[in-house]
Amino acid sequence: MTDLAAPAWQVGEDDKLHEECGVFAIYGASHAAAVTALGLHALQHRGQEAAGIVSFDGKLFHQHRAKGLIGDSFSRKSVIEQLPGNAALGHNRYATTGASEMRNVQPLYADFAFGGFALAHNGNLSNAGKLRRELVQRGSIFQSTSDTETIIHLMAISKKKTIVHRLIEAMEQCEGAYSLAAMYDDGIIGVRDPLGIRPLVLGELDGASVLASETCALDILGAAYVRDIEPGEVVVIDKRGMTSLRPFKPREHRFCIFEYVYFARPDSTLEGRGVYDIRKRIGQELAREQPTPADVIVPVPDSGVPAAIGYAQESGIPFELGIIRNHYVGRTFIEPTDQIRHLGVKLKHNANRSMLAGKRVILVDDSIVRGTTSTKIVAMVRQAGASEVHMRIASPPTQHGCYYGVDTPERSKLLAARHTLDEMARIIGVDSLGFLSFDGLYRAVGEAKRDPANLAFCDACFTGDYPTPLTDYDHENAPANSLPGLLQEAAIS
Amino acid sequence: MTDLAAPAWQVGEDDKLHEECGVFAIYGASHAAAVTALGLHALQHRGQEAAGIVSFDGKLFHQHRAKGLIGDSFSRKSVIEQLPGNAALGHNRYATTGASEMRNVQPLYADFAFGGFALAHNGNLSNAGKLRRELVQRGSIFQSTSDTETIIHLMAISKKKTIVHRLIEAMEQCEGAYSLAAMYDDGIIGVRDPLGIRPLVLGELDGASVLASETCALDILGAAYVRDIEPGEVVVIDKRGMTSLRPFKPREHRFCIFEYVYFARPDSTLEGRGVYDIRKRIGQELAREQPTPADVIVPVPDSGVPAAIGYAQESGIPFELGIIRNHYVGRTFIEPTDQIRHLGVKLKHNANRSMLAGKRVILVDDSIVRGTTSTKIVAMVRQAGASEVHMRIASPPTQHGCYYGVDTPERSKLLAARHTLDEMARIIGVDSLGFLSFDGLYRAVGEAKRDPANLAFCDACFTGDYPTPLTDYDHENAPANSLPGLLQEAAIS
Amino acid sequence: MTDLAAPAWQVGEDDKLHEECGVFAIYGASHAAAVTALGLHALQHRGQEAAGIVSFDGKLFHQHRAKGLIGDSFSRKSVIEQLPGNAALGHNRYATTGASEMRNVQPLYADFAFGGFALAHNGNLSNAGKLRRELVQRGSIFQSTSDTETIIHLMAISKKKTIVHRLIEAMEQCEGAYSLAAMYDDGIIGVRDPLGIRPLVLGELDGASVLASETCALDILGAAYVRDIEPGEVVVIDKRGMTSLRPFKPREHRFCIFEYVYFARPDSTLEGRGVYDIRKRIGQELAREQPTPADVIVPVPDSGVPAAIGYAQESGIPFELGIIRNHYVGRTFIEPTDQIRHLGVKLKHNANRSMLAGKRVILVDDSIVRGTTSTKIVAMVRQAGASEVHMRIASPPTQHGCYYGVDTPERSKLLAARHTLDEMARIIGVDSLGFLSFDGLYRAVGEAKRDPANLAFCDACFTGDYPTPLTDYDHENAPANSLPGLLQEAAIS
Amino acid sequence: MTDLAAPAWQVGEDDKLHEECGVFAIYGASHAAAVTALGLHALQHRGQEAAGIVSFDGKLFHQHRAKGLIGDSFSRKSVIEQLPGNAALGHNRYATTGASEMRNVQPLYADFAFGGFALAHNGNLSNAGKLRRELVQRGSIFQSTSDTETIIHLMAISKKKTIVHRLIEAMEQCEGAYSLAAMYDDGIIGVRDPLGIRPLVLGELDGASVLASETCALDILGAAYVRDIEPGEVVVIDKRGMTSLRPFKPREHRFCIFEYVYFARPDSTLEGRGVYDIRKRIGQELAREQPTPADVIVPVPDSGVPAAIGYAQESGIPFELGIIRNHYVGRTFIEPTDQIRHLGVKLKHNANRSMLAGKRVILVDDSIVRGTTSTKIVAMVRQAGASEVHMRIASPPTQHGCYYGVDTPERSKLLAARHTLDEMARIIGVDSLGFLSFDGLYRAVGEAKRDPANLAFCDACFTGDYPTPLTDYDHENAPANSLPGLLQEAAIS
Repeated sequence: MTDLAAPAWQVGEDDKLHEECGVFAIYGASHAAAVTALGLHALQHRGQEAAGIVSFDGKLFHQHRAKGLIGDSFSRKSVIEQLPGNAALGHNRYATTGASEMRNVQPLYADFAFGGFALAHNGNLSNAGKLRRELVQRGSIFQSTSDTETIIHLMAISKKKTIVHRLIEAMEQCEGAYSLAAMYDDGIIGVRDPLGIRPLVLGELDGASVLASETCALDILGAAYVRDIEPGEVVVIDKRGMTSLRPFKPREHRFCIFEYVYFARPDSTLEGRGVYDIRKRIGQELAREQPTPADVIVPVPDSGVPAAIGYAQESGIPFELGIIRNHYVGRTFIEPTDQIRHLGVKLKHNANRSMLAGKRVILVDDSIVRGTTSTKIVAMVRQAGASEVHMRIASPPTQHGCYYGVDTPERSKLLAARHTLDEMARIIGVDSLGFLSFDGLYRAVGEAKRDPANLAFCDACFTGDYPTPLTDYDHENAPANSLPGLLQEAAIS
Repeated sequence: MTDLAAPAWQVGEDDKLHEECGVFAIYGASHAAAVTALGLHALQHRGQEAAGIVSFDGKLFHQHRAKGLIGDSFSRKSVIEQLPGNAALGHNRYATTGASEMRNVQPLYADFAFGGFALAHNGNLSNAGKLRRELVQRGSIFQSTSDTETIIHLMAISKKKTIVHRLIEAMEQCEGAYSLAAMYDDGIIGVRDPLGIRPLVLGELDGASVLASETCALDILGAAYVRDIEPGEVVVIDKRGMTSLRPFKPREHRFCIFEYVYFARPDSTLEGRGVYDIRKRIGQELAREQPTPADVIVPVPDSGVPAAIGYAQESGIPFELGIIRNHYVGRTFIEPTDQIRHLGVKLKHNANRSMLAGKRVILVDDSIVRGTTSTKIVAMVRQAGASEVHMRIASPPTQHGCYYGVDTPERSKLLAARHTLDEMARIIGVDSLGFLSFDGLYRAVGEAKRDPANLAFCDACFTGDYPTPLTDYDHENAPANSLPGLLQEAAIS
Repeated sequence: MTDLAAPAWQVGEDDKLHEECGVFAIYGASHAAAVTALGLHALQHRGQEAAGIVSFDGKLFHQHRAKGLIGDSFSRKSVIEQLPGNAALGHNRYATTGASEMRNVQPLYADFAFGGFALAHNGNLSNAGKLRRELVQRGSIFQSTSDTETIIHLMAISKKKTIVHRLIEAMEQCEGAYSLAAMYDDGIIGVRDPLGIRPLVLGELDGASVLASETCALDILGAAYVRDIEPGEVVVIDKRGMTSLRPFKPREHRFCIFEYVYFARPDSTLEGRGVYDIRKRIGQELAREQPTPADVIVPVPDSGVPAAIGYAQESGIPFELGIIRNHYVGRTFIEPTDQIRHLGVKLKHNANRSMLAGKRVILVDDSIVRGTTSTKIVAMVRQAGASEVHMRIASPPTQHGCYYGVDTPERSKLLAARHTLDEMARIIGVDSLGFLSFDGLYRAVGEAKRDPANLAFCDACFTGDYPTPLTDYDHENAPANSLPGLLQEAAIS
Repeated sequence: MTDLAAPAWQVGEDDKLHEECGVFAIYGASHAAAVTALGLHALQHRGQEAAGIVSFDGKLFHQHRAKGLIGDSFSRKSVIEQLPGNAALGHNRYATTGASEMRNVQPLYADFAFGGFALAHNGNLSNAGKLRRELVQRGSIFQSTSDTETIIHLMAISKKKTIVHRLIEAMEQCEGAYSLAAMYDDGIIGVRDPLGIRPLVLGELDGASVLASETCALDILGAAYVRDIEPGEVVVIDKRGMTSLRPFKPREHRFCIFEYVYFARPDSTLEGRGVYDIRKRIGQELAREQPTPADVIVPVPDSGVPAAIGYAQESGIPFELGIIRNHYVGRTFIEPTDQIRHLGVKLKHNANRSMLAGKRVILVDDSIVRGTTSTKIVAMVRQAGASEVHMRIASPPTQHGCYYGVDTPERSKLLAARHTLDEMARIIGVDSLGFLSFDGLYRAVGEAKRDPANLAFCDACFTGDYPTPLTDYDHENAPANSLPGLLQEAAIS
């Protein structure tokens, strides 16, 4: 889900694209909320800013939402005990700024005339703004600035008889990317958009059914992986078992290729492919496409590690941890005091001088977004005495924003959108810079090449080739989602 | 406002009826939120459990809500600075149980298609449940369990062009008691129901207009009292000044007489009458109607003090503080440990033995609700050595519930609803018990007597003579507001 | 106890002198900590800023300390359950500024070689600074800035065999005022200084022995009052019962007369005299000494009420609540925003206009410290329309600082220390001003008059006649307790 | 430093030995506290449970202590602004249980007669219990249960004239391991015990002098490494510059070899050796000593990575991330709900199935403590389909407790202290198990072999060869530090 009113291009401090959500649901398990907390913990990389769990005990819904990590907010017995029941739904959320964000923390919950309903969304609706304006005109009152709430209101005014059919009717009006997990008083529901942009997998734990964004959320529980929910599929899991519906018009499948490049956890398997394995193969393709003489292969930790291992194995150059990451950074942030900013403090990474001094270094990273981190890393490696610094990127240049549930900076801030390869190399300060080719990326995921006539993935962030209309957005310019009402609400603090 | 899903008859621990809300709004003042916090502080006696302020800075609305006292939640500069603007609206709320109550803390805020709107409500709508069911069927999604939200949804689906006319159309569908203060992007609005059950006054502070539940909220600021908003009046205050509308069908006026007996602060003036003065006159009427030989007049602190002074002056018997109140009780509550409960701990009151031992004591209290506190107080006074204990109550017997924004126990818990005067005296343990008569009460407020054909006040808690239909309620039995949807939502924790 | 390093003359915002502490101890009661919390709650008026309880379960000591009111900090079951045992010791503390004050919150606890020891102190040692310097030179390391810690270190270096004799040896070196309650692994100890400046009473609850600063802490529990601990007495209560020792050189008794004027709760009985009764008699003396024609007697709430009742009864002029106190002020404080300060906000008191307009008013207050509050009150009464305002003070002029455990402003800030009666009347803005005479005060407490040769009370705040040396202080000038070490430690935040 | 009263053998949940402290001090830098917070952040791996900073502004000392990570507690501007001055001292602390632990959080601070003094300690005094008993007998009152406080009291009773000489006199009475950083009103002091067991380095930042436990705390600031403080050296840094004293009787140097194996950060350089480089060389020695045919080398993340890289490079077997670590574990802990414990939840590690299935796997870890984690990891790797699992340990068997500032389980819990190699292999469930030899470890750090007659390191945890007396401890049995006083104090909650 995406916050319509927040600055849409807000960028995480660490100069990475950010997946905005992870979802998890389970039906038929005692201690469903505790299990859901563990599932969300395994999906923590998909959203660290806030989380929520709704449980259903057969009669009543119970919910808890909190800012911060699952391990901080949902690890206490007292919290879990307030979430009784055999069914539960959970959601991890990536950041928005502002004190009011609690309104946007999912799962969203609504009392319909015919019962309670909770909804967790991974993705983004690219026409949510338009739909919202129409709903508000009709008399709907929005409580959040999330695109996800649009689904709730479309369901509320639907004339369909069942919650499942109301949900289907609502989604038929939505465009964009959505992997949904929902819960109502009969069971849980999983939905994947017809393009299958975001992942959603089905698992089984001691007879209970599980929906999760990635397989790593099954592994943490020892749950068995059953299959991926298919693009355009609606799965309803209740006391009668599982029903699979295919209510949407079939489309070509366009799974997000960046899930393989960076978003997913390396130990997950998505759409039948092991993520770590893909990344190593990306590194091998990169070594073949972009070789250069060097003494050491150094990953930019931690996301560059699998590709660097692949590069090292393919090239025969030794793999070394030339940059050490401080594992205690990431969750917290030392507030910048102006006075010490000039020190160029190395909060997150430190050069491992003994592996770098006098060496020709190939740095391997997964992608370049704004280039700010790359610039600092290269400078640090040079200060540690590297004689040459070459950078190899395990994906093509990131040149376009994502409107499908990923937090991307505005286009003018994307380094590759504004500069040639040479300019980028100069800005970052490397002796040479090489990206993986489109075809190389497609080869790594098992295709022969990138076939524009028959695309197997969404690669819009590299190519600008968006698989859906972008009703709410003016792609080339600023986001077009400024609504007076939204702005007012956004200011509610 | 009233919480539809909370146990409607929940009783405060201190065996008093409780006014459920205070409202305050100001338009045209710099630092409107700081001024509103002070106004709410003066109205703290009308609701101690939670409070909220919404401000408008000309472009955006800002809000803060918190549990607890104004002095705790809104006294910090950092909070007030987050509420910029020259217009603000505030609300004090009496308790409901349950962790989820933040959803019910007012002012409520909604984004309408044509702008933002904030609403604060003192009173209770006696047909809110029925309206809510109809709205939910239509597709409205409620976020709170408050009757006040019904008004918001009625406005959202109105076809009227302006916010003021939408509000009027909404209120035409509502029955019950309401003094409303509202804020939109043009100004503030004050509304009083046609019967004028709850108070609402208009004031002026350095050119800014003020709406408040009682005049004491003007006094704290040094604001001038202008007049009471009249029953059935809608006052719109914007940059063009003040407009008075009278859109509702005229009704007889039925101001709540219990505001004089207990709810209002003694230093307030309501409907042209000073509250302390009325209470003293009640005490004088009581002395004339219910005399008895005694050595000392002892008020049950603090609410019985003005009537006791009046009783003492009329009877010539000395007024003495025979019971001392611990001023540090009231806000907090020592959790009962079973082991010390048997001690009969006197957290709140202590006998002033030197004024009671060997004396014939007349205790004066404002009212008897369940009788539990009276029983304890009398026992304490007897233990301190009083030779006789007579109780005089500064109002008629409280025999009926209030459905107009007052927290009353269910009828079967009202002492006077189940027992004769003699039985009550025996239960409480006094040598004699006397209540004020209906006529005595009406005389104290300046009427000749209580004229059933031409009632000037709502006295339903004494008489059962309700001035409106009670659509949602089965007066003689349990409250009839159980909705499946509401129960589910109420369980959200 | 007194904070040696805090600004010694810091003044409470409410322009009153402040008793700095209340103590409570119980031995032989199940749930001793819960009982102690209730006792401290009844003594809350003697210190509102922080509190602590130490319990002993026969083997181990347990403690909890917190800022704020007892009802906030010690009302939860979870806190009390951490304080098991049949013996407990508690302390209420008046304010000091600074975040580090937790170090100073009593009871203090120390591990001696022969066992644990906890100490709670009401009073102030006037040679603590000198003793501290000597102890630090010897190698003692102080953890707090409290004079009370001096006692702990004197005990630690004592060569006496038992804790009781070490405590006695320590107190023999101390001068000033002290009512101590202490607990060790055999029982509890009560000590009162030879002059008996501060109160300490003995009670009995179901066979358990209780020590408390005032009788109101017995009443809250239904405990029986046994007797006052006598000046110079050391009472040891252990499993063998109670032992009374009189180790100190006998002195004349000099109980603090200001306890009767203001500090103690009106429902307490101290040294055989009921406090409310004394205050009424003070009001009667005042009416005789300082009569004036008037229409109403109005107390400055709440401390002026008993004297005002006495004045009214003696003079025959009606007693009226012409000033209404907001009961929700006192614990919290709305932070001054400069912008609204000019409004002259009436946070605490409001004029009851109907009782004041056109009237000749006699205001009765217990004392005048700096005069700031009096000035505001008089202005408020005049604005409410009073035709004349006369002020009568239920004590002589307060002209000197107290060094015995009371928080007083420096002498130059005491209104009566710098101005004549006429000047004071002009500053405060009254038509006339009258204080009680020394002899009137002594008559009210049952003496024939104030006999300088045979003083029965400490009245140094009125007379400057200090009953002990003031080793650490230069009475006429600034406090002389500036130690380099202390200043450093005080800055520890 | 070590907590004398806490259960001495308490074990961290992650089955590792834990360094108990990191220290940092800076003199002559503006914003010294902000710089210190950064230094402590880089030393976070040496203690995660609590931290403290004391600053000195030329006149006053200021301090702040908090539980949790530096990035959480010291990142806010408001905290740092309360710590003004050009000199600061900081300390990271490993865990102890119990609510009272704030008393033990360092730096400790004391007011001596001649000024303030703050002390931060890395190490443990093995005769602190004996010294403490003597000091308490003499009249010293301990506030913490830390061995470090002993130093403070020894200084307080010293007759030496200066703080530096008092500190030296105190340390002459102490045995054990200590790297101290201290601050007084003239400057900062660094001390290393004569054996040099714990590290302490000297750096320089824009003219300011820095003391830190490891060089990574210099790197984060961009500070230059000057040299290691030498064993037995006392360095005094004040406005006159740096003075080096060597007051202690010279001893052989015995630096802790486990700092290289596990404690230190891989990017640090200690005693002239790069830690990552040593660990890689350990892996190479291990490959030579303990070869076995296999398909992949898999490190147990993260501590096994450098040795695994060394092993892979030496053996030619590919290095793969066969186990993925959840980076969001470590700071928080999902409280075990019994009901889900049987799931065998994988909170911290997950198998990367595609790299393990059907493979012969060599797992490389730094050490085995209790063996609990190893057992789980091996089972997980087998479940992922590994055909063979061989474990190689980058150190000799850990058979003895450490008494020099490392948290070790009691001997009976150390796997290698109770079992033969074969038994261990069977318990852990591996096909083969191999440890590095003593000589292999010494070769990796640059020695020819382990020469018992001339030991260059403390390797007592492997050999039981303790370089100091263990006065307080009965090595073979339970810790002998039970003092009545301590037990009482420990119970203070």
